[in-house]
Amino acid sequence: MHTNLKRTLTKECINKVGEMVKVQGWVKKIRHLGNISFIVLRERTGELQCVLEGKLAGVIIETESVIEVIGKIVPTNNTVLGVELLIKSVKVINKNDLLPFEVNKKEVNTGLENLLNHRVLSLRHEKIASIFKIKATLEEAFREYLINMDFIRIFTPKIVSQGAEGGANVFNLNYFGKDAFLAQSPQFYKQMMVASGLEYVFEIGPVFRAEEHNSSRHLNEYISLDLEMAFIEEYEELMELETQVIKFMFEKVKEKNENELKLLNIEMPTITEIPKLKLHEAREILKNRFKKEMPEGDLNTEGEKLIATYIKETTGSEFVFITEYPKENRPMYTMPAENGLTKSFDLLFKGLEITSGGQRIHEYEMLVVSFREKGLNEENFQNYLNTFKYGVPPHGGFAIGLERLTAKLLELTNVREASAFPRDINRLTP
Amino acid sequence: MHTNLKRTLTKECINKVGEMVKVQGWVKKIRHLGNISFIVLRERTGELQCVLEGKLAGVIIETESVIEVIGKIVPTNNTVLGVELLIKSVKVINKNDLLPFEVNKKEVNTGLENLLNHRVLSLRHEKIASIFKIKATLEEAFREYLINMDFIRIFTPKIVSQGAEGGANVFNLNYFGKDAFLAQSPQFYKQMMVASGLEYVFEIGPVFRAEEHNSSRHLNEYISLDLEMAFIEEYEELMELETQVIKFMFEKVKEKNENELKLLNIEMPTITEIPKLKLHEAREILKNRFKKEMPEGDLNTEGEKLIATYIKETTGSEFVFITEYPKENRPMYTMPAENGLTKSFDLLFKGLEITSGGQRIHEYEMLVVSFREKGLNEENFQNYLNTFKYGVPPHGGFAIGLERLTAKLLELTNVREASAFPRDINRLTP
Repeated sequence: MHTNLKRTLTKECINKVGEMVKVQGWVKKIRHLGNISFIVLRERTGELQCVLEGKLAGVIIETESVIEVIGKIVPTNNTVLGVELLIKSVKVINKNDLLPFEVNKKEVNTGLENLLNHRVLSLRHEKIASIFKIKATLEEAFREYLINMDFIRIFTPKIVSQGAEGGANVFNLNYFGKDAFLAQSPQFYKQMMVASGLEYVFEIGPVFRAEEHNSSRHLNEYISLDLEMAFIEEYEELMELETQVIKFMFEKVKEKNENELKLLNIEMPTITEIPKLKLHEAREILKNRFKKEMPEGDLNTEGEKLIATYIKETTGSEFVFITEYPKENRPMYTMPAENGLTKSFDLLFKGLEITSGGQRIHEYEMLVVSFREKGLNEENFQNYLNTFKYGVPPHGGFAIGLERLTAKLLELTNVREASAFPRDINRLTP
Repeated sequence: MHTNLKRTLTKECINKVGEMVKVQGWVKKIRHLGNISFIVLRERTGELQCVLEGKLAGVIIETESVIEVIGKIVPTNNTVLGVELLIKSVKVINKNDLLPFEVNKKEVNTGLENLLNHRVLSLRHEKIASIFKIKATLEEAFREYLINMDFIRIFTPKIVSQGAEGGANVFNLNYFGKDAFLAQSPQFYKQMMVASGLEYVFEIGPVFRAEEHNSSRHLNEYISLDLEMAFIEEYEELMELETQVIKFMFEKVKEKNENELKLLNIEMPTITEIPKLKLHEAREILKNRFKKEMPEGDLNTEGEKLIATYIKETTGSEFVFITEYPKENRPMYTMPAENGLTKSFDLLFKGLEITSGGQRIHEYEMLVVSFREKGLNEENFQNYLNTFKYGVPPHGGFAIGLERLTAKLLELTNVREASAFPRDINRLTP
């Protein structure tokens, strides 16, 4: 008699008091109290308490089974939603097997490896699902901001014939008998798209790093939020743009993910201006204040963390740009500045590098010299180099590691928690 | 004196009559007429005629060089824009080399191979750039429609440990000493994300097919617009959703790409309802009307074209769904229907398959049987199969090949024209 009912979502039930509805979802909990049983049904929009009375009570349904329930929505004081469903009929759509761990508790009590081995189950926990809802918002906001700024979405190949930044740390591939690589970044291609006259381009896609790290900060496949823009006058414009982009991304999360932030107990940082430190200034602070000597031309992991603490204490900012890296420590396409320095920057967030960026070399001869200085054979990069023969404007860009940004924002202890199916040196499944 | 001027875009010049502006872009054309010279400057928002008079006239600047021009905007009847710029100073920002072909003509007179070898140049032609502007709109509209429908954006791995649909036609990879593959499609992972409780998911990303075709329809790397949704009751819901999605995508192109459509001389098809043909009906039409026998269980390329002609003639539609493919011709995850058929469909657009989709099997035992029927070793798919032990709802989905859709919409003769840097059996560069 109710077979023609369309599915009602949990979030819609609040407006259906007195109506007969059909709901579908997973059994989060089931509880029996004599002549009455309670099923908590969970689906993507929330949870609904469903009540079994009389001869329906006492029915045994495994948690995490998929069920369809038909019944009447009634008001109640016993649920957050303010309504519950009095069950008329319940049907098991798909049963489930023995669970490797319970997902209906406030916290999931199992280790990261187990969570990742059983992603389909762990994602059913609302806190874990929240990570991916927020990650989706961050990506969506990145693109929305850029499209409003007149950027165009590009798609560049992930199978390439040359290693993006010099050949190390790339995955090799047999491409119909030819040697090929997985793209480490869309760097060369996004620059080519700028040079093609599209000027303002962005890409959101996977990048692949064959790094033999096994740390809480590294993934071997991750999502890179990349942009590149023409006709910049100074590389500071890029930092200004990134500040605005991240501000917009955080505002969108505040707006769209209020529930998820509450669940994860996260307060969004407020961004006004992001402080800038020259690398040599950062090194001096570390030396004088923290008695830490940094390796030549860079900060190490410990240095990044200490500088973050210092900046947080002195300015209140969770972010800091580090600028003026020396030529030796930056890729061959980086625009040089005076005294062996470069027009480049990193962005640290809560002590972790989430961005590298900078102005790029746009003149053919200067680029050839830079390749030679790095000891690179320019013949291996001919397709990229040829671009610069045909009139390339001054340009620059940056890339944000989406999983790192998500992990730091949500105070996850391991970047793998921000990847649904992470790839690391030991993990290729699921 | 004007060094502090900010860049003005061509499209903004129309509102700057009488003002001194700075413009930057590429020299599309230069033409000398005695005491006066004309430079047509091109950038991402359009073209601007710049006039050199008196002693500035006669200056030689290579076409496709990047220049910066400062001058006054004046009204004129000689340009489409209604204004031109009287040059006060002109600076070459980056010169260019000898061009391999001219890009300032109405049509580019060179072959596809040459266009692809020199993508940075060919993209400077406004007709070619238009393809990628429209492609970007199609992608943007796909996601916008789905986000409005409560779908969530997911990211699934491209390096995988198992071939998505059985192992053939995958690229192999050495992953830290382990055998790995490039994902043929996000099929398994998007189903797992549905099963994880996210229910409505979509992904936009590259897929990799190691097919040894060398046709105008195949790419070895392309962008797949994928979606998957839970709690469907019939697979017809998927076709209805796809109809609405494509309709929305086309409306967005009409709205955002009026200029590009005009340039390419494309009239957008109007979509009301998309006709459906059962495979056996299509085969009968081909046999009776066109005297063509199709291979068992599918249509070949010629058959797809003839059916498109037939549907166009009889219904006016450029699209047609072909349904009820037999089990033997569909992947092992396809939901069976009666009489050895399946709840699956293809979508043809102007005679080319742009989508495969359908309902999926959601019960563990049924799926295991299906794997065995296909002669597949279920142990190789354990991570995927395990998903179905934990309560998976009825679900289904489809994928649209973005380059194929773009190519057909814009009446390109080769799908490679819709890929900035296509990968085919012979092409791995640029």
